[in-house]
Amino acid sequence: MGKRVAVVLAGCGVFDGSEIHEASAVLVHLSRAGAEVKIFAPNIEQMHVVDHLKGSPSEEKRNVLVESARLARGDIQDLAELKVGEFDAIIFPGGFGVAKNLCSWAVEGKNCTVNNLVKSTLKAFHSAKKPIGLCCISPVLAAKVFPGCEVTVGHNRNVDGRFPDAETAAAIEELGCKHICKDVSEAHVDSANKIVTTCAFMCKAPLHQIFYGVGAMVTEVLKLA
Amino acid sequence: MGKRVAVVLAGCGVFDGSEIHEASAVLVHLSRAGAEVKIFAPNIEQMHVVDHLKGSPSEEKRNVLVESARLARGDIQDLAELKVGEFDAIIFPGGFGVAKNLCSWAVEGKNCTVNNLVKSTLKAFHSAKKPIGLCCISPVLAAKVFPGCEVTVGHNRNVDGRFPDAETAAAIEELGCKHICKDVSEAHVDSANKIVTTCAFMCKAPLHQIFYGVGAMVTEVLKLA
Repeated sequence: MGKRVAVVLAGCGVFDGSEIHEASAVLVHLSRAGAEVKIFAPNIEQMHVVDHLKGSPSEEKRNVLVESARLARGDIQDLAELKVGEFDAIIFPGGFGVAKNLCSWAVEGKNCTVNNLVKSTLKAFHSAKKPIGLCCISPVLAAKVFPGCEVTVGHNRNVDGRFPDAETAAAIEELGCKHICKDVSEAHVDSANKIVTTCAFMCKAPLHQIFYGVGAMVTEVLKLA
Repeated sequence: MGKRVAVVLAGCGVFDGSEIHEASAVLVHLSRAGAEVKIFAPNIEQMHVVDHLKGSPSEEKRNVLVESARLARGDIQDLAELKVGEFDAIIFPGGFGVAKNLCSWAVEGKNCTVNNLVKSTLKAFHSAKKPIGLCCISPVLAAKVFPGCEVTVGHNRNVDGRFPDAETAAAIEELGCKHICKDVSEAHVDSANKIVTTCAFMCKAPLHQIFYGVGAMVTEVLKLA
């Protein structure tokens, strides 16, 4: 029997949804490990829709669950239907959608609020001592919901110009968490909290290195499951 | 110097655009091989927009280039700007968007027309003896534009229920091409035409097997480049 893993999406596209290549990498690595995967997303309107060609918001409205269904090839469920007892682990790929649709980090930083359903889902896995995997900006969800936990979003300074969002590490520490510096191919395991994180696109790196880093995260999550 | 590869997208989402995991796999494998990649899409309206949750068309209008930009993280150009002299190879991931936006195969089958820009781009690479990689349903573009070529879209019968669209192989043969049966992890190389194909999601297979098959196609394309 493969491990049963829930993957939670936040839309489809780096600037207003889940980062597509991170989400795909999570699913490829889970498939390779023989995991049984179900995909979820909250049935809510996106904070906004970004025209990814222009890089600026458009006037459109889109729904997080409907757009996430693109990544799931239609095989997706409302996050409200997720039952923690049916899974051994949960994984949140990154992308601005996490910081815009699953919480308000993109607007409010460390003073953000986390979507109630996302918060209760995270707490349910944590209470059941089931591992939680997060990448890119998603670790801020853990930092906000589990003060004192350890996460990585890469580096706490812009080493070699590869970590342009290094200030995120300081914001995480201001929340009472410990930020662990890790490179793109590495994952950090907070064994006490069973939280596994990797920086993914928080690092300016070639796509295959991000793919490997996501793989490291998935592997550690499955070990803990 | 890495090989210079153009990747052509058809939107973002299996039912009305590029198949996301195929496109991501192409980019991961190209990154791993050290290729220099530029991403293109035609600046045209999608045939339609499919609500991927319901599986049915919506009333929305979306643009192929704008939606493809989601897969390209904004780093994309109009296909009209592609100069064949600047590339060593070209790759078309699959998805219904290829059969709806790049040609009319989804509606007209073997009697389809191919978008003029897509057709002239394919012919330019072919004339320059530069390899063309295609996966999933994309091989029908080659079958339509280069009668007599060899391609695979998997199997010509629904072996073990894994090839539900096996009749595509017969349609390709009716166009005067040779269909070569291959499994999901394999690519077929038409050496004379420098056309490399793999069936990807034309086979019902676990995602990582599709990832490997796309990798086989990318590897053969780069060998020919």
